[in-house]
Amino acid sequence: MTDIVLHNYFRSSTSYRVRIALNMKGLDYTYVAHHLRHGGNRAPEYLAVNPQGLVPALVWNDGTMIAQSLAIIEFLDEMHPEPPLLPPDPHGRARVRMLSQMIACDIHPVNNLRVLNALRSRYGADDAEIASWFRHWVNETFEPLEKMLSESPHTGTFCHGNTPGMADICLVAQVANNARFNVDMSAYPTIARIRDACMALPAFEEAAPAKQPDAE
Amino acid sequence: MTDIVLHNYFRSSTSYRVRIALNMKGLDYTYVAHHLRHGGNRAPEYLAVNPQGLVPALVWNDGTMIAQSLAIIEFLDEMHPEPPLLPPDPHGRARVRMLSQMIACDIHPVNNLRVLNALRSRYGADDAEIASWFRHWVNETFEPLEKMLSESPHTGTFCHGNTPGMADICLVAQVANNARFNVDMSAYPTIARIRDACMALPAFEEAAPAKQPDAE
Repeated sequence: MTDIVLHNYFRSSTSYRVRIALNMKGLDYTYVAHHLRHGGNRAPEYLAVNPQGLVPALVWNDGTMIAQSLAIIEFLDEMHPEPPLLPPDPHGRARVRMLSQMIACDIHPVNNLRVLNALRSRYGADDAEIASWFRHWVNETFEPLEKMLSESPHTGTFCHGNTPGMADICLVAQVANNARFNVDMSAYPTIARIRDACMALPAFEEAAPAKQPDAE
Repeated sequence: MTDIVLHNYFRSSTSYRVRIALNMKGLDYTYVAHHLRHGGNRAPEYLAVNPQGLVPALVWNDGTMIAQSLAIIEFLDEMHPEPPLLPPDPHGRARVRMLSQMIACDIHPVNNLRVLNALRSRYGADDAEIASWFRHWVNETFEPLEKMLSESPHTGTFCHGNTPGMADICLVAQVANNARFNVDMSAYPTIARIRDACMALPAFEEAAPAKQPDAE
């Protein structure tokens, strides 16, 4: 039993981010699955929890509902500071938030399931076109992200120094999503190296989609 | 003269967010305009500043470049804590970040200029279809946002209590964008009320697109 509930979907990369953060903090939680493809997240009972009807949503042990993965991760970091997911200095935090938001604002929203479904229904986009769309927006951001990571003295084993944090969480979840659309990662050696370093850590590895109870 | 530079575009709602925050903090800055529609943000000189080639980007007075509007706003809040743009408690900060990210992750990225341009070039979307797409994603998030704001005891004159902050900044910039696509705001009385309260404040009003040096 636990008092923390994560509303979740195994394949959702934003859910994946929060699972990694919960694991890094060593927090037990109850996993409640919502099947996005079957519209389970639009059920009235779930809309009563999160009016946006999206996953992830965290219900904290005092009943507070928090939606939006980066808001959840920063909340976890403030409530349970160890190990830190953000650097101690404002400049470092700004850099980690910037790197995180490059993925969370400029890649994921344009490529998530509801947008891809809209491209199919509005414009008749087929699987090949959907994959082309997906890869386009990944590459638009991964090219500068690779450059920024490879050229910065702040980059270490991980995106910021030698301890994993919020930017690594976003990076790993995005790379996992990329694999479903055959994104060529050979142009992104720094991103790939950081991803591999993360996946060697149990907190990341155990949060992977294939390891979740609703995995297909 | 000033040491803070904001790379900017008058009509960009993410730039608008940062202008409001700078005004609220009372910080002078040099306004450098990049004309998104003319591709000015893809110039090599600008890519040397921000490899992503997007606006806004802030160059702080020590030369540090920070991209991504919410990362910039949190940085400004940490460097110049008064007046605060986020609440003092973790639960309040989580709520403000959640409300901000509902707009910054679930509306703006799907509706920004480069995505609308892609809909035109890939699928032949015309002006009416672009407007329909835009309104769809606004309504998908404004419906739950209105509900969350109108039903929460934490909502006051502004999104969180009676002082304006990061969520209000995002809300105002989004409502300004909505007007360009004739979003019907009658279904969103709480959002409209908060927007009006913000626009009565000089920091918001002076950051408006029409007041900027590159306004057309």
